Amino acid sequence: MQSGVLQVDQRLLGAIEAGGTKFNCALADMQGNVLAKAAFPTTTPVETLTAVRDFFNDAVSARGATLAAIGIASFGPVELNRRAPNYGFITKTPKAGWSETDICGYFRAAFQVPVAFETDVNGAAWGELIAGAAQGCRHFIYVTVGTGIGAGIVINGQLLQGVTHPEVGHMLMPRELLVDSYQGCCPFHVGCLEGLASGTAIAQRWGVNGKHLADDHPAWDLEAHYLAAMCVNLTQCFSPQKIILGGGVMEKTLLFPLIRRKFLELINGYAPESVLTQIDQYIVPTGLAGQAGIVGALDLAMQQLNAQDSSLRT
Amino acid sequence: MQSGVLQVDQRLLGAIEAGGTKFNCALADMQGNVLAKAAFPTTTPVETLTAVRDFFNDAVSARGATLAAIGIASFGPVELNRRAPNYGFITKTPKAGWSETDICGYFRAAFQVPVAFETDVNGAAWGELIAGAAQGCRHFIYVTVGTGIGAGIVINGQLLQGVTHPEVGHMLMPRELLVDSYQGCCPFHVGCLEGLASGTAIAQRWGVNGKHLADDHPAWDLEAHYLAAMCVNLTQCFSPQKIILGGGVMEKTLLFPLIRRKFLELINGYAPESVLTQIDQYIVPTGLAGQAGIVGALDLAMQQLNAQDSSLRT
Repeated sequence: MQSGVLQVDQRLLGAIEAGGTKFNCALADMQGNVLAKAAFPTTTPVETLTAVRDFFNDAVSARGATLAAIGIASFGPVELNRRAPNYGFITKTPKAGWSETDICGYFRAAFQVPVAFETDVNGAAWGELIAGAAQGCRHFIYVTVGTGIGAGIVINGQLLQGVTHPEVGHMLMPRELLVDSYQGCCPFHVGCLEGLASGTAIAQRWGVNGKHLADDHPAWDLEAHYLAAMCVNLTQCFSPQKIILGGGVMEKTLLFPLIRRKFLELINGYAPESVLTQIDQYIVPTGLAGQAGIVGALDLAMQQLNAQDSSLRT
Repeated sequence: MQSGVLQVDQRLLGAIEAGGTKFNCALADMQGNVLAKAAFPTTTPVETLTAVRDFFNDAVSARGATLAAIGIASFGPVELNRRAPNYGFITKTPKAGWSETDICGYFRAAFQVPVAFETDVNGAAWGELIAGAAQGCRHFIYVTVGTGIGAGIVINGQLLQGVTHPEVGHMLMPRELLVDSYQGCCPFHVGCLEGLASGTAIAQRWGVNGKHLADDHPAWDLEAHYLAAMCVNLTQCFSPQKIILGGGVMEKTLLFPLIRRKFLELINGYAPESVLTQIDQYIVPTGLAGQAGIVGALDLAMQQLNAQDSSLRT
């Protein structure tokens, strides 16, 4: 509780959901209550990062507060290995002008605060764990099906990270060749998941944005097939408690029952009992409708701050 | 160092590699030096488990020693969740007579010692980490390609386990429909990895055990395609430092260069630099030639013993 006179806590947290289309920004108090929001189009690094910096500067100053930490959930690929010289960079991205952008370093330099840095999907997965559809889960996967396809994977309460972050969108899929002669839209692979089932693929295959395709268009049966096969492969690889499907394509909610039915057909009983008997609780929509990335980034910022504070105390 | 008179350490470790064809057993000292070995055919649970128990009883008694702990690396599926009522069981297996066998409980009751219990592939993966091809790795995958296909996955030095253990063999694969009309040998799935690429699949597709197929038989190109696609999918899901391929099929060593070449074609540059530039160190054979399971099981037995000893001290 805070009065207009007494400032209980003037430290604020910043969250940046850095997407290929726009950067969503939020300023929040230490309890995660959002005080200000803004979005800036992803144009050039200089233009976009400057706009984001100015937003935080202005919003923090207007409240007579200070920024304590920033959490970034970024499009990629990104370098998450803290020992790498380019830690915190967007690396080789097809997004024009953004390859080798030191996004983490930019904000660390601009605000001199701890900066948490994750992939966009890791940030969203973390948000789902904190306050969304994955609350109480130890093992789950958040998949975004939008312009591209990516996944944040949590096993034993930790974001999974090998040499680099998972690139689940580039799994090679069983293609439905009898009904689908489309080669896929991925510049790297014929027949990878993103190439066959992303929003980009839907638009290219059918010649129109998926939003404009009727509910009974054959596009949705095919889309459900690929996403069901993806869910099978994620189940066999990770054995999660839950698979959360988010992103623009999943706003077509008729996909959920189609995916669940096809998943059960494809996996044909070869899964834990809990998966087979509670499929409606296994393949689920996001619990945070577009806010998962910001919620996750705020929590990651708080964690980064706590880690830094505790390392200063010891 | 141990003389014939002074018994420096009379406590011994048992390792059981429980396979669908035979149970390999080893008795070792606390340094992991194997003192006695035996193998028993996998017939009925009563017959096989009794033979294994008698082997350890006799081998330990003959040395005037005691058994301190046992490590089991078992065929499956198995229940690894310690909170489950059937922890340590082989669950629903196609292996006749073995479903719902409490293999862990049998040896715990027989010897009244700590028993470590893992999947066969987790045991072998652990062996590769301790003394084989994965030494020094934080993230790697061990795949066995034999009668079936399975994988033990280590991320951050830990065996990966979700609700249950991974079942990588049942991933759905991009099928080479133009050259491969075979439906696969998996009783559950059309087009899963094990159904298309296990030793059983090779024998069924070509009508003869793979051992008898010439090096220039088209079987090997097709086999390499499926295993390369598997390596792509494992790379995109887990981003390991290394993928180790073991099991009977991989004794056909000509597969390694074929798989590496096809992997590079399929992944088409979309992988960490270290993978692309050092493919010979990325997709590799086992470092323990058939001994990985026993080496791993011995180390897991030792860990179980240490964990129990330390919990008794506190």
